[in-house]
Amino acid sequence: MVGTKEQYFERVKGYKPEAFVGGERIKDLLTDPNTRTIINTVAKTYELACDPRFERIMTAESPWTGDRISRLNHIAGSIEDLEMRLELTRLMTQSTGTCCGRCGGCSGLNALAATTYAMKKDGIGEYHGRFIDYLKFIHRHDLSCHAATTSPKGDRTKPPSEQSDLDLHLRIIEKRRDGIVLRGAKAHQTSAIAVDEMIVYPGSFAEGEEAYAVACAVPNGAEGITYFLQFNSDDAERRASNDVATLGNPLYGGRQTMLVVYEDVFVPWERVFMCGEVKYTALCLRAARRTHIYNEGPCKAGFGDLILGASKFLAESNGLDKAPHILEDFVKIISANETTYASAWVAAHKGTEMPVGSGVFFADERFSVLSKLNANEGFYEVMKAAADIAGGLLVTMPSEMELKDPGRRALLLKYLKGRSDIPTEERMRMFKFLNHFVASPHAAQAWIGGGAPYHLRMALYEGTDLEEKKRLARSIAFGCE
Amino acid sequence: MVGTKEQYFERVKGYKPEAFVGGERIKDLLTDPNTRTIINTVAKTYELACDPRFERIMTAESPWTGDRISRLNHIAGSIEDLEMRLELTRLMTQSTGTCCGRCGGCSGLNALAATTYAMKKDGIGEYHGRFIDYLKFIHRHDLSCHAATTSPKGDRTKPPSEQSDLDLHLRIIEKRRDGIVLRGAKAHQTSAIAVDEMIVYPGSFAEGEEAYAVACAVPNGAEGITYFLQFNSDDAERRASNDVATLGNPLYGGRQTMLVVYEDVFVPWERVFMCGEVKYTALCLRAARRTHIYNEGPCKAGFGDLILGASKFLAESNGLDKAPHILEDFVKIISANETTYASAWVAAHKGTEMPVGSGVFFADERFSVLSKLNANEGFYEVMKAAADIAGGLLVTMPSEMELKDPGRRALLLKYLKGRSDIPTEERMRMFKFLNHFVASPHAAQAWIGGGAPYHLRMALYEGTDLEEKKRLARSIAFGCE
Amino acid sequence: MVGTKEQYFERVKGYKPEAFVGGERIKDLLTDPNTRTIINTVAKTYELACDPRFERIMTAESPWTGDRISRLNHIAGSIEDLEMRLELTRLMTQSTGTCCGRCGGCSGLNALAATTYAMKKDGIGEYHGRFIDYLKFIHRHDLSCHAATTSPKGDRTKPPSEQSDLDLHLRIIEKRRDGIVLRGAKAHQTSAIAVDEMIVYPGSFAEGEEAYAVACAVPNGAEGITYFLQFNSDDAERRASNDVATLGNPLYGGRQTMLVVYEDVFVPWERVFMCGEVKYTALCLRAARRTHIYNEGPCKAGFGDLILGASKFLAESNGLDKAPHILEDFVKIISANETTYASAWVAAHKGTEMPVGSGVFFADERFSVLSKLNANEGFYEVMKAAADIAGGLLVTMPSEMELKDPGRRALLLKYLKGRSDIPTEERMRMFKFLNHFVASPHAAQAWIGGGAPYHLRMALYEGTDLEEKKRLARSIAFGCE
Amino acid sequence: MVGTKEQYFERVKGYKPEAFVGGERIKDLLTDPNTRTIINTVAKTYELACDPRFERIMTAESPWTGDRISRLNHIAGSIEDLEMRLELTRLMTQSTGTCCGRCGGCSGLNALAATTYAMKKDGIGEYHGRFIDYLKFIHRHDLSCHAATTSPKGDRTKPPSEQSDLDLHLRIIEKRRDGIVLRGAKAHQTSAIAVDEMIVYPGSFAEGEEAYAVACAVPNGAEGITYFLQFNSDDAERRASNDVATLGNPLYGGRQTMLVVYEDVFVPWERVFMCGEVKYTALCLRAARRTHIYNEGPCKAGFGDLILGASKFLAESNGLDKAPHILEDFVKIISANETTYASAWVAAHKGTEMPVGSGVFFADERFSVLSKLNANEGFYEVMKAAADIAGGLLVTMPSEMELKDPGRRALLLKYLKGRSDIPTEERMRMFKFLNHFVASPHAAQAWIGGGAPYHLRMALYEGTDLEEKKRLARSIAFGCE
Repeated sequence: MVGTKEQYFERVKGYKPEAFVGGERIKDLLTDPNTRTIINTVAKTYELACDPRFERIMTAESPWTGDRISRLNHIAGSIEDLEMRLELTRLMTQSTGTCCGRCGGCSGLNALAATTYAMKKDGIGEYHGRFIDYLKFIHRHDLSCHAATTSPKGDRTKPPSEQSDLDLHLRIIEKRRDGIVLRGAKAHQTSAIAVDEMIVYPGSFAEGEEAYAVACAVPNGAEGITYFLQFNSDDAERRASNDVATLGNPLYGGRQTMLVVYEDVFVPWERVFMCGEVKYTALCLRAARRTHIYNEGPCKAGFGDLILGASKFLAESNGLDKAPHILEDFVKIISANETTYASAWVAAHKGTEMPVGSGVFFADERFSVLSKLNANEGFYEVMKAAADIAGGLLVTMPSEMELKDPGRRALLLKYLKGRSDIPTEERMRMFKFLNHFVASPHAAQAWIGGGAPYHLRMALYEGTDLEEKKRLARSIAFGCE
Repeated sequence: MVGTKEQYFERVKGYKPEAFVGGERIKDLLTDPNTRTIINTVAKTYELACDPRFERIMTAESPWTGDRISRLNHIAGSIEDLEMRLELTRLMTQSTGTCCGRCGGCSGLNALAATTYAMKKDGIGEYHGRFIDYLKFIHRHDLSCHAATTSPKGDRTKPPSEQSDLDLHLRIIEKRRDGIVLRGAKAHQTSAIAVDEMIVYPGSFAEGEEAYAVACAVPNGAEGITYFLQFNSDDAERRASNDVATLGNPLYGGRQTMLVVYEDVFVPWERVFMCGEVKYTALCLRAARRTHIYNEGPCKAGFGDLILGASKFLAESNGLDKAPHILEDFVKIISANETTYASAWVAAHKGTEMPVGSGVFFADERFSVLSKLNANEGFYEVMKAAADIAGGLLVTMPSEMELKDPGRRALLLKYLKGRSDIPTEERMRMFKFLNHFVASPHAAQAWIGGGAPYHLRMALYEGTDLEEKKRLARSIAFGCE
Repeated sequence: MVGTKEQYFERVKGYKPEAFVGGERIKDLLTDPNTRTIINTVAKTYELACDPRFERIMTAESPWTGDRISRLNHIAGSIEDLEMRLELTRLMTQSTGTCCGRCGGCSGLNALAATTYAMKKDGIGEYHGRFIDYLKFIHRHDLSCHAATTSPKGDRTKPPSEQSDLDLHLRIIEKRRDGIVLRGAKAHQTSAIAVDEMIVYPGSFAEGEEAYAVACAVPNGAEGITYFLQFNSDDAERRASNDVATLGNPLYGGRQTMLVVYEDVFVPWERVFMCGEVKYTALCLRAARRTHIYNEGPCKAGFGDLILGASKFLAESNGLDKAPHILEDFVKIISANETTYASAWVAAHKGTEMPVGSGVFFADERFSVLSKLNANEGFYEVMKAAADIAGGLLVTMPSEMELKDPGRRALLLKYLKGRSDIPTEERMRMFKFLNHFVASPHAAQAWIGGGAPYHLRMALYEGTDLEEKKRLARSIAFGCE
Repeated sequence: MVGTKEQYFERVKGYKPEAFVGGERIKDLLTDPNTRTIINTVAKTYELACDPRFERIMTAESPWTGDRISRLNHIAGSIEDLEMRLELTRLMTQSTGTCCGRCGGCSGLNALAATTYAMKKDGIGEYHGRFIDYLKFIHRHDLSCHAATTSPKGDRTKPPSEQSDLDLHLRIIEKRRDGIVLRGAKAHQTSAIAVDEMIVYPGSFAEGEEAYAVACAVPNGAEGITYFLQFNSDDAERRASNDVATLGNPLYGGRQTMLVVYEDVFVPWERVFMCGEVKYTALCLRAARRTHIYNEGPCKAGFGDLILGASKFLAESNGLDKAPHILEDFVKIISANETTYASAWVAAHKGTEMPVGSGVFFADERFSVLSKLNANEGFYEVMKAAADIAGGLLVTMPSEMELKDPGRRALLLKYLKGRSDIPTEERMRMFKFLNHFVASPHAAQAWIGGGAPYHLRMALYEGTDLEEKKRLARSIAFGCE
């Protein structure tokens, strides 16, 4: 059965992780302003999954339990699954204006499904069965998952073993009879504190780096884990605010990432899905990329849809929504949104099973990467166009809190007025809303999130058969009748 | 049965159109250097259609005759047809490095299939049957067709009726018992002289402009028709060359367009598919755009594949194919190619039947337009990257004709050498080949061909539901728990 | 004598304006966190002016009083003055990372010097003498000034007289024997509350709009004036912070703008420099643009210098400062900075006296506009490159406040470490610093500030002699020996 | 005395170089269509130098002979000289639409003035005096010079000594009592065959590569020299044309480069200015870059002026010159032109003497490079905008030769008509003119000419003091009161 948001809230009530934001200990996930937003967003994944209008997009049938489950816990078994997942991503960002928090978890589950299958095929049998058991547990309870991927890494010029501190990549420091002990950290983890489970999987490691080749599942707030939440200006603003309704995205806020530190965290064997098999780390990373990156495009297209809508509203309220140069701005936003969406859509449709026989489907790598690269560039174009449309109040708007005083309210409503049939309060709020998206960390997040663009560009290069292109060129250049 | 290139050559032998290029009368289509190229290209459409490897891409089954026919004469009846057509387009440009010449004809046939169906549904019965009969004729002989769309238009600020010359839009000057008489011209017609049939269809006209609302089919070299071929530098170069092997694209040359003048050309009724029904011109134009524009992307991606291959060759011969900045150049070319391809692919897959019930499928208009807009910008990026990779010889290469003299040959092979294991003759030819694509009219053709970008941008704007986006933005901006 | 920052602080102590930020009344300009930053910045203009190293850039000699004065109160009398002013702008942004607050005031004084001169020359004598007297007053005390230019404007499709509220453009509601009474507002006013004087001047108005054609000087906190400060996330963050050292720009913060409302504000005649002379409003606006806009480039180049420096620091601490793709990122930042600077530099050097005989020099309009347009586009490129260099911690960095607890400090210093010889505390602070510039409202401010890009583009078009270019083209195209 | 074009023509009559184009021996430089154009252009440098309107731009006073000489032979001795040289460059491209042919020569003379001075200062005395004597000779006769810089280089991954053929870099194969003997080639040499003298100077070489460190002067057509002219499509078109008036740039054609092969060419000592002093090659290269590259911007801006003028003409004749999107296109062209011009202007004005004491002035390297990089990108933007403005006839225009037949003339003038008050013949010619600039090798030439962009970008990086920027960033990021 698809989980409900009520069930999710109930579970969250039980979580008491060691977590800090802005120098303060988080007392209650459900009421702390910086965690409430991400909990609202994860709750929205359950809410939409229970909405019959979105059943095809938001849910799937588990082949292991037969349950109807959230698609975010589904192992993609077909092209249609791949397509529906990107529609889910766009729908979620359209519906919340922020990261759904579970996307990485979905990628992690899919990557491990493929990787443990590959190990099993090669005779390393213990992990796949364990993973499937774990998956059934997830499906049965429709738990929310997050992926723990990127270690802090320290000095990028040096391999893990040459770092001044060996813990700069998460590692196994002890193997016990009942499980393993982890030390290190995972960085940039979106919404980790708001989910039920963290799916840990490794980057690509070489022989001699066995201690770093670890995949497992860790429950929210496991002993030894500390969460340090990001603290951008908008996080600080929300923390300090007396009325979240006056913020740019009242309910869902901005993307909330965190550094998750593992101080000798114990993981029992039944939750361990790789333990030293460096040979499979490259496959795992590639699988994760193929399942994850193509969602970056729809994710940003969803933001872009909101930016487009807000821009339209503000253009109207400025009286300029038919001006030729404003129309061109709309076109720039639309182009950026749909270009990245299109690449992702093709990535899904040209997806393939990997490894063959596993039944796990992954998006095409080249179009995935392309979608992400187009999303990066596109988002900055979207920001320019939106700023151009909105004009100065995008950044010079006073706080809506001023409206609580009748005298100041009168002055602001008088002087911030646009087209007279559009309520000035709505206009103010929409400026704040747009500000949240285009005068904020969003673009930098878009650029950096999901992997360094340099590596993605090189993946596009390496994934392209240049010899075949050379053959085509030769055949015409040296052609004769 | 799919036609063969031999049959095509045989038919061409019979065509003696009144045609001029560079101030000279064309004496023989098959031997004139400026028409031979486009005939080779059209012939290639038949050759590949007869090649079993490409059967699925290049051919289809005619529902009217049951014949296996060239896909370029096929009325798209499914999403798969739409997808296969774009693969055909990329395959053809990869295989010839130029316009296949029949793409517009295919678009014209599809547009008229839909338009005549719509008229029939509204009780204007004569055209559809006639058109189907004509289509059967085309299918039975697998004739090659070209579309005659754009009138010269004169002063763009004025409607047809206010032009200083009423003939600046092609028009019906007389309706007779046995047919109609046309006067005017169609501009920018690619390969028109190399095909069997020209499919004439109108732009969008308003009430009072009935004389311009004409669709019909005119055979190659019909009485009263004069063809004026374009004369770019590369056309002149080919005309003057003693050895086409030394040219950039030896067999297929560059895109060859022409101005086709109609001096009182008679068309019998059985070949007339619209005659004054201005109400249907908008549908016809939209259908043509939906079937045509999404092929611009794959077309340029095919060129881009050749440019990529040539760039790879030249980077190797310069010894720089692993330099980091050259890899980034490759990535720019790949990104441009695949981005426009991706948009087109989605256009095909999101295609729909129009009008409902007609059985005729058209690509999605928004993604079609996007593909074209991305192709435009992308091609200039491709050109920059290719120039960056190739270096100076891209434009400073002496003529290969010098090699015919042993002394000059020795000097040139000595001093134009790159990596020593790559033959200098091949290097020279590849520079010329790349020059043909990136130091040439190709980019301007890409930009302009298929319709003014301004109108396409506006189509993207008009095709996007901004109210829906506004609703999404409002729902989050004004959201509360 | 050039003023000192101590004198400035002394004056500020006396100002008790009616001002609001984030819903709260500002009690003390010197201690309120959201005004302290802009006061620090204005103070910096005095500090640097008193620093002998910067004398040539920061000061000038008043031709009216013979005093050495701040260049920000100087009427440019030569090309060198124009050049030094742009160097001042870049020096100030390099030194504070924010708007110096007095740049607009300087533009306003220069615009009024030219406009009142023009009126005098046409026989409207009273204003120029008055303005010079006022200028002497400013020079004698080296007061800081700000420009009040842009009215809220309401619905942009309608002229002032057709707005639903006539006050949406600032207007004279009464002329008395001793002065005039103003009603309305000025929007987007940077640092207005931190300066001694506001220089009010009009946009361009037409006959019939005399009430809006008003220029005058209003002291800080004049009776009837209310200031509503902007409230972006970073303003909120600062307001809530316990330790400004942990913020991105500790001392100077972000650009602080405000809406300044005039509720029947009385201005005595000796401070009125235009009162109904609509004919001169166009000149005034043009003069303001010519003196102001060319400073947008150096202003953003100064920010860019800081971003470049921070990026270099972070690239080093990531261990990636020699990676080829990171070098390319540095080049992108450098190019953007120096391209906009170069256009501004030419604008200064091609400056001219306006009106002839006035002795007032203005930068060339075309290159001014170009500098601004290049700054707009450039800043987004800078942001992309900086995000690319910095990587994820740019937006996922926890608060430096965590370091106050020894245990959390140990964990964060361990896991946020980069190259081991670079202190992690510095690394954390530099991430926050860079975040302040490139994951923030800065780009949107750059885009919008100084006038709508559309109008600037049209100014570039109108300022270019296309007929002359046509003549050049004709002369070659139709040339013969 | 400034030379006249008549004197120049007279000298050219005497030149009988061994030169080939398109596989044919050039018989007469003055009548061969592919050399006549570059001779016309060089002649234009003399013509404008004799025109009193352009005296300040086109001429200077020789400090060595006291003569008024062409500025293209002048050793820049001041900032004003640097500024005037860039004005000369823009004037020449505005006046001819092509490379003036003498720009490189001017750079070579300036580079050698500085380099020989540096050697003399270090006690290597023979070269400077010789060079000054040579310069006096040039000044006395006002000869035209060209620079021979770039050797073919073969495989770029290998140094000269590891090439499969040691001659792939021009080298001294023998030192005799009376002079030296050279073997090798120089590539991409613009207009070399149309000038009086070739100024040979080296790239940067290291110890052990003494044979390649050679600078000298070689007269046109010296024994042992063979010229291989480039053969782009437009070269071929011109070669074949019966009426050059129908070509895009009737008199001056396109840039004409050539490969110049040195088969054991003897150079007497009085013309040798460096012979093995590898230590000075880096200075020489840097000097050449500093004097040359900043002219790339004005050169392309001059082309851009012509493109702008032609676009304006065609927009008018299409009736679209006031359409909002066309105005934006104009702005794009203007922005590109003036942005690159501005960077160059600053490069000139921030120029410095090098070496100190030499009296030779060079443009600032960073702004020079920036000008060139902006020119590269800008030219592609210009091409897009021009194509957008012009529309399809830009590439589909039939040959003007058709007009020689009355019947065809009537048809073409009827159907190619635009706005009725603009002669269709002019319209046709202007389309051909614009085609010559934007559907041609011009952009690739702009991109590649003057050095590989990668090296220029790295020069910008290396020329920027990133440590100083880091210091600025630190000072604010870590600032406290």
